[in-house]
Formats: sequence, C-alpha cells, structure tokens
Amino acid sequence: MSPGIFETELEKRTANYTPLTPLNFLRRAALAYPQHAAIIHGDLRYDYRTFYERSVRLASGLGGLGVGPGDTVAMLAPNIPAALEALFAVPMLGAVLNMINVRLDAATVAYILEHSEAKAFIADREFGSTATDALGRLQEKPRLIEIDDPLAESGQPIGGEDYEAFLDSGDPDFDWPGIADEWQAISLNYTSGTTGDPKGVVFHHRGAYITTLSNALVHRFTPQPVYLWTLPLFHCNGWTNGWVVTALAGTHICLRRMDPAEVFRLIDKHEVSHMSGAPIVLNALVNAPPELRRKTTHVIEFTTGGAAPPAAVFEKSAEIGFNITHAYGLTESYGPASSCAWHGEWNDLPLGERAHKMERQGIATLSIDEMAVLDPETLAPVPADGETMGEIMLRGNTVMKGYLKDAPATAACFEGGWFHSGDLAVVESDGYVLIKDRSKDIIISGGENISSLEIESVLYHHPAVLEAAVVARADERWGESPCAFITLKPDGEATSAEDIIAFCRENMAHFKAPKTVIFGPLPKTATGKIQKFMLREKLRALGPRKEPEAS
Amino acid sequence: MSPGIFETELEKRTANYTPLTPLNFLRRAALAYPQHAAIIHGDLRYDYRTFYERSVRLASGLGGLGVGPGDTVAMLAPNIPAALEALFAVPMLGAVLNMINVRLDAATVAYILEHSEAKAFIADREFGSTATDALGRLQEKPRLIEIDDPLAESGQPIGGEDYEAFLDSGDPDFDWPGIADEWQAISLNYTSGTTGDPKGVVFHHRGAYITTLSNALVHRFTPQPVYLWTLPLFHCNGWTNGWVVTALAGTHICLRRMDPAEVFRLIDKHEVSHMSGAPIVLNALVNAPPELRRKTTHVIEFTTGGAAPPAAVFEKSAEIGFNITHAYGLTESYGPASSCAWHGEWNDLPLGERAHKMERQGIATLSIDEMAVLDPETLAPVPADGETMGEIMLRGNTVMKGYLKDAPATAACFEGGWFHSGDLAVVESDGYVLIKDRSKDIIISGGENISSLEIESVLYHHPAVLEAAVVARADERWGESPCAFITLKPDGEATSAEDIIAFCRENMAHFKAPKTVIFGPLPKTATGKIQKFMLREKLRALGPRKEPEAS
Repeated sequence: MSPGIFETELEKRTANYTPLTPLNFLRRAALAYPQHAAIIHGDLRYDYRTFYERSVRLASGLGGLGVGPGDTVAMLAPNIPAALEALFAVPMLGAVLNMINVRLDAATVAYILEHSEAKAFIADREFGSTATDALGRLQEKPRLIEIDDPLAESGQPIGGEDYEAFLDSGDPDFDWPGIADEWQAISLNYTSGTTGDPKGVVFHHRGAYITTLSNALVHRFTPQPVYLWTLPLFHCNGWTNGWVVTALAGTHICLRRMDPAEVFRLIDKHEVSHMSGAPIVLNALVNAPPELRRKTTHVIEFTTGGAAPPAAVFEKSAEIGFNITHAYGLTESYGPASSCAWHGEWNDLPLGERAHKMERQGIATLSIDEMAVLDPETLAPVPADGETMGEIMLRGNTVMKGYLKDAPATAACFEGGWFHSGDLAVVESDGYVLIKDRSKDIIISGGENISSLEIESVLYHHPAVLEAAVVARADERWGESPCAFITLKPDGEATSAEDIIAFCRENMAHFKAPKTVIFGPLPKTATGKIQKFMLREKLRALGPRKEPEAS
Repeated sequence: MSPGIFETELEKRTANYTPLTPLNFLRRAALAYPQHAAIIHGDLRYDYRTFYERSVRLASGLGGLGVGPGDTVAMLAPNIPAALEALFAVPMLGAVLNMINVRLDAATVAYILEHSEAKAFIADREFGSTATDALGRLQEKPRLIEIDDPLAESGQPIGGEDYEAFLDSGDPDFDWPGIADEWQAISLNYTSGTTGDPKGVVFHHRGAYITTLSNALVHRFTPQPVYLWTLPLFHCNGWTNGWVVTALAGTHICLRRMDPAEVFRLIDKHEVSHMSGAPIVLNALVNAPPELRRKTTHVIEFTTGGAAPPAAVFEKSAEIGFNITHAYGLTESYGPASSCAWHGEWNDLPLGERAHKMERQGIATLSIDEMAVLDPETLAPVPADGETMGEIMLRGNTVMKGYLKDAPATAACFEGGWFHSGDLAVVESDGYVLIKDRSKDIIISGGENISSLEIESVLYHHPAVLEAAVVARADERWGESPCAFITLKPDGEATSAEDIIAFCRENMAHFKAPKTVIFGPLPKTATGKIQKFMLREKLRALGPRKEPEAS
C-alpha cells in the first residue's frame, strides 16, 4: 500500500518536531516576565530572570562535576528555592533529579543514593544528620553540595561544598544542552513499597510536559497563580506543580514545613491563589484555632489527593474559602491520574451526598487515555453498578517509564497492556470510580468482605474523631474483624470504645462495625501516610480477639 | 557507550506510550458530563452524550462510504453542530478533515476538492450554489452529504444525501479505530498563497493535542467555559478552540454569521465566558448601538488575532467587559503561535502606551519552542532594539507537517531548520515581537487573508487593464482592504472603478475584490519592477478608507 498523500514528503523536521519537555517553560517565563516574582522564601524574592539564571548556574556547576545525560543528581531538601532550581537545572543537562523524602531514615536514604547511582547529592543542613549517616554507609560517595538555609530552624554541617558558593562559580550563560529525545528520563521518585526496598519510579520528559499542561487545566490553574507549597516537592515533583506554576509564570511561595499559623499568614500576605496537599493538610488547616485562620476571603483552589477528603473536612474547607478538587493518582502516574470532575448541580445536594460525590476518584484526567476498573485476572471491565470490585488500571502518556533496575516489577505492573495500580474500586452508575480498598486492605470477616476505608469514612463523621485507621485483627470467632485506631480531637468531647462502635453500627451494616477500638496517635510515613503495617504488627502482638472482649 | 540505567528495560509500552490526539477529549467529556450542554444552536441543545454519539454515527457513516485512514473529507459549512461533529468524527477514522472557507468562489472550492482528493463532501445548503457550481467542475465527484439547517436564512438543494438521515443510518456503537501514530494528519486547511493556487496546510494529531492544552491555558480558559463561535471553524479549526472547549467540557454556542445584535443576545442568554475573533469582530461589537449591547456585566475573555486591535477598539472592549488577549499566528502554526503575554502593571499606563503594549505579537506560546526574529539571509537573530527588522521564524511541535503535495513550497518554508512566516518584525527591548510588515503580499481584511497577487492576476484579464498592482490600504471597518492601482491601455475602452470592482467580484470570492481603485502610471524601479512601497506611502497619505467610499 502506498503511503498516501498525507505521508508523502511531509516528514518530521527540526522546525516542526522537537522533544516535549517542561524545560522550555522556565525559559519562556524568564523571557515574558523577567521581573515578576518567581520564588518567595521568607524575605527572599527571586524574579524569573534570577530563577532562570540560578538554574543555569546550577546546571553549569553540575556539568563541571561531570554530571551528564542519564546521570542521577539526588536531593534531600524541603520546599526551598534550591529544590525548584534543581527541578530545572538537572534536566537541563539531560540528567535525572531524584528528590528524596526528608522524613526517611538514613539507611533508606543510603539505599536510594546507592541504587540510583547518584553522582551528586544536594542536601539541606536541617537533614544533615540523616545525610551524614547515609553517606557514611556508602562505598562510593557522590559529590556533596550542602544548603545552609537561614530559614532552617536547626541543622548541622555535612562537609560538602556550599550551595550558594557552588552557584556563584557556575556560568550564567551556560548553553545547556537539554535533551535529544522526549523519552529520556527527567526525574526519579522512590515510592515506599509495602514490602522490602523502595522502588525507583522513572518519569520522562514527554510525560512531564503533558501532565503539566493537563494538571494546570484540571486543577483550575490560571495564568500567574500564587502557589503556596504545602505539598512536598519530593512527592512526584510536587504532583508536577513545580512545572505547572512555572509554565504559568506564577509565584512559588516556599515553605519548609506545614504549620497552620504560617500557612494562613502566607495566604494573607501573598494572596495565595492555589494550593494542594493530602487531606491531612486540609484537616490541620480547617481544625486550626479560629484566631490563626486567614483574614482574606478570596477563593483558593485546593487540590487534594492520596486519600479522599472526609465529609467534615470537605465541609469545613468551604468555610475557610477553599474550593476542593479531589485528585487520585500514584507516583507511577506522575501523581494525578484522575479527578472527581465536579458537576455544578451537586452543590445543591445535602452535605452527605455532596461529600459522597467528592470522595470519588472520578474519571481520567486529560493526560491519561483510559482509567478502567478491570477484573485483575481476566482484564474484563467491571459493570458500572457501584458494587462489583475490580482493580484500577491506567493507560496513557503520563504513566512512568518503569521501575529503575527492576525489570520484573516493571513487567509485572504493566502486564496485559495496562498499568496495574493495586487499588480496588467500583464504578458507579455515572462512570465515576470509587476506591473501596487497597488490595491488601480488605478485611474478610465471617466470610464477608469489609472495606476498611468504608469504616474509616464513617468514623470521620464522629464528632470526637480527628483521625482514624482501620485494619484487620485476627479474630477467634470471625477469622478477622475490623479494629479501629483512633486519634481524638484535643478539644473534643470524651468518648469510649463502646460509643464509637455504637456509632458505627448506627451508620453502617452491623457486621462491618469495628470490634476493637484503640485510642492514641497513629504511626505515619514520612509522607504523612498512615502506616497500617505498624498497626497490624501491634495487633499481632496483642493476639487474636476473643469473643466477649467487646461489642 | 552503554545505554545507561535509565534506558535499560524501560522501553515504550502500550500502557505508557499512546498517540497524542484530541479525540480522547470528546470521549472524556461524554464520560464525565454526559448531560451537560455541549452544543447549543438556536433552540437545539445537544448534551455531551449526544455530541459524542452523533460524532460516532457520522464516523460510522463515513466509514461505510469507504472513508479510511489518510482520506480527505471536505466540508463547506458555517459554525453549526455538524462542523463540530466532523471535527471529531473524521479523525476518528484516521481520515483528514478539510474545512473550506464558505466565502470562497466555486472555482477555488473546486480546486480544493480536487487537490485534496476529497472522498466525501459535506455542504450546507446556504452555500448550495457554490457547492453545485464547484461539483460541476469536477471530473471525479466526492460523495455528497448536504445539511439542511433550519436556522439557515436561505439555501438550495445540492442533490446529496441528507446529513441527518446519514447520521441516523450510522452505528452509535461503532468502534472507531482512531490512529496508530500521532504524526498522522488530522486536518487540512487551505491558505491563500501569494501566488495562484491556495496551499493545503496539514495538521497532525500530536500538534492538535498539544496546541489545545497550550491555547486553553494561554487564552485563559477554565473548566466548562461557555464559548460563543464568533470565529469561523474553517480558520485553523477555529484556532483549535473546537478541541479546547470540548477538552474542558464546555458549551459551544453555534453562530451562522457575525451579527452584533445576535451576539449580544447570546452572550446574555447563555452567560458566555469566552470568545475569539479578528479585530473586525471586536470592532463591530464595540461600535454596535448601545441598545443592542449586552446587559450582563461579567468579564468575557476574548482572544483576538490576525491583526493588532487598534487602540480605540482595545479601549472600548474594556467598556463592554471584554478582557483581550492578543494572539499571533498563521494557519501553518495551527493558528496561535504567540501572544502578547500581559503584565498587570501595564494596566496603569495611559491608553496610548497600553495600546502599544497590546498591539505587539509578544512571545511564543507554551507549545512553540522558539519564536525568533532572524535575518532571512543569515538566520542571525536581530538585536532587541525595536528597530532592526527580521523575519519571524518558528520552531516547535505546533508547526504544520507541511504543504500537501507541494514539496518545493514545504522545503522552502522550512529552510535552515525554521518555519519562515514571511512576516517582518522587530524585537523590542523587553523581548516582545512587533510586526512591521509582511514580506509576502498578503492583505488581511476582516480576518481573511487575501493574496494581492491573486487579485492582480484577475485584473490582468480585464480588457482595459495594462498594468495592475494591489496593496493593502488601512480600512476603518475591515482593518485592511485591497487597493488596486491600475494603468489603462492607451487604446482601450473607457472604464471606471465600479466596473473594475464588478469585474473582480465576478471572477473571485467577493470579499477579495478591491475596495479602492486608483488609475494612473505605476512607480517603477530602473529594472521595471513595480515599487509597491511607494504605493503604500501614497495610501498612508490618503488615510484609512471609510465605509461608504466604495463597495
């Protein structure tokens, strides 16, 4: 067959086919808005010319250390200017940025530095102790650059070159090479596996470019937003918002740690327009004492994800002027893969129904071709009946390249032409997806499947509950039964296990109610995710539940 | 050299690499918002489920006619639902949509149908006379489908199958094949070349996807916009807004023709949020009698381009609640390639300075890697001095594949690794580009490109004309209009301006006919070349054309 008139002498050329990359976004912002505030960190203010120049200097300096295409540059830092600079500088060399979660322990950091073969390591002195300990465990040490941020509350020298001096030595006119192919890696993000070592999720330039534009639209960004960094940049490169805000020539307001008083102060001071974070961030903000709250009244677009926002949090968010977009995704999908695309008419529903609409993971975002809920064995789609469970699977250009140096895990997660998320969900009659459970979070009690998430969402309606996590406890009678771990609100009313169980029985099928309730703080990962495996360990130590103990 | 850890066992797969295409935008909108108003046309209202279903039916029907990958489907219609349906239906087959300007004459339409090898032709009965005439000139006729729109003010049968009956016979569950490669052509848009025949500009799916997301952001779209179609869909697929509005699950308000009273009525009725069009559209709206104007007061985002908005129009736009974005581009760049990215502080400047800032073509949009002003000979960039002229050149993924069946023109326009726009410009000290002149002899009148050479070749057929030269004259209504300078044959018959204009209208699309005719000798160089710059100077001295003067 002949190629046809549209494929004849119409080949790709330098002028019409260039590798997609978010790197151009910074160059464009610096050209259009050289004097506009790009980064604000305390009293520090970098305009876009400076942001670009500092990034080029950093790229130049790293190049001078021998960092080149395909090399890893690791970073251990909170949301500070250097983290944004690295987000552009490292890929300018064709190198790969590995932002490491600052809450990880030294052994894990060492594992990551070694596994990623990091050639350079940029660390903030606040995490100097972890960095020093981690480096001490390595045979081959990367070149060390350390950040001495005046806004850090504490810190200790690590013995590396000073970040600012390193930038000073860089060439502001460095002609950075960029990339030759949009499939090249841009960043590496380790995800805490449920078992064993963390896995290195590889992002590519093509996906980063596409997800930037898609997220900007779906998360209701507009030109020149003012974005407050309540979301860690080490989470999927800040759910790609490091690129989004720069593409729109907006202002990045840095934040070393989540502190409600500081967050509200910055919102007022800089007229913040956009934010994002896990529901726990929202929770902390809506429950902050009234005297700390924001004074401004403009609406702030807030994207939340990682878990569904509980109804009470959702309701109170409106009270403090936050318009919520609920997104769902994984590190493997560059963060956001779907969103609960909102319908205006839902605003008229009673809170309970509105909250139910909102808790759903919704539908694929603009950059994902398909999000389907499939039978994990047959890959057949489940009916949209709100009941039949299947596994969420994704297909599209904003799914990772794969896991670094882990061909078996990569092959497994891509089996059958889909990315397997591991999340179990149903499809409601309107086509919106609702997660019922992580595949391993199902509690099987007396032959019935119980979703721990369902119990948790009921618990969050209890007036005294601040946080709740439900896991399976071995049960002499039922095989397993749900056990609720609960943190109470500091200023809430007194309550008891009996009260909590009675509340659950009132609000859900009786068999689903927890049979054990334990009060106290919840163990969390560095990313703020509740560590259910630790709760399970606790329960194992406690032994199986015997019949008359509760209920 | 080994491929490196980031290129090892991390190849492209079905789950993470899919062809970029705007087709998924419609599928997604239909999934998320099946009952939301997608298209409104008079009293007709199609929701997204219906829009999608009708598009699938159309694709199915066309497939039944034998239309497949790489085939052309031509359309002659104004901004009606069928035009939006074709925008998705035709590419669903891997086929290529060719929207034809409804103002063209039959001979040109025939040329386009033949040159594009159209397999099917969908025509609106209002343009039945043109369509019938054009088809009569063809040896091989495409399959004809005709639209009988109740909102058309006039029209005549063409002898084809009825569009609605054709849709009825289509399969709503047709499993459309889509595309295999994002470099495949999606649409074909003929542009009036400087010499003779129009050139077929080929768009590809990759560029259409990217420019959709980019334009949505740069032109300040937000989720679920209400878009009024004052811009023809046959201009670069409506500057890609057919895809933009659908991607954002917005509402398309159709419009058969630009009528200020109707436009204002629709703005109020549907709370229109976004519009676009050439400055002439803005001009007509701001100069409409006060009693016709909109009653609502919300701000409407209006993107204009094709020519700079004059200061008076710019000023009055604010009075009627339009926030202007000035974009620049060509058919060859899918429409918008740059925009005059606005600085908030410019709002405080006096009108004259503000209007000057706004008239600039500005800086590259998010989807264009580079817009440069280069010396056409050496390709060296001109200094940013606001004085040195060069040619605007583009490089990026939203530059066309090339000209259909015209390898020499394609090669010429891509020489040296840049797309040569033919527009002459300077770069101001802040890096913003300002067009000074067009190197090609194009006149932009009422948003339409007119080739002066085409008019001249018609004029030379007039029995009394010895020599003719056509240049653009400033025009209070049309922005520019063609002015013909004519030397009569010494022994020819007497003639008049009216006669010349009437002759032109008989032999070409009416809108292309000169609106001013000046008789006398033509200034020439020593080698006998007509000095058009002297004619332009003469016109500048004459001042802009006022309305009743001619036509």
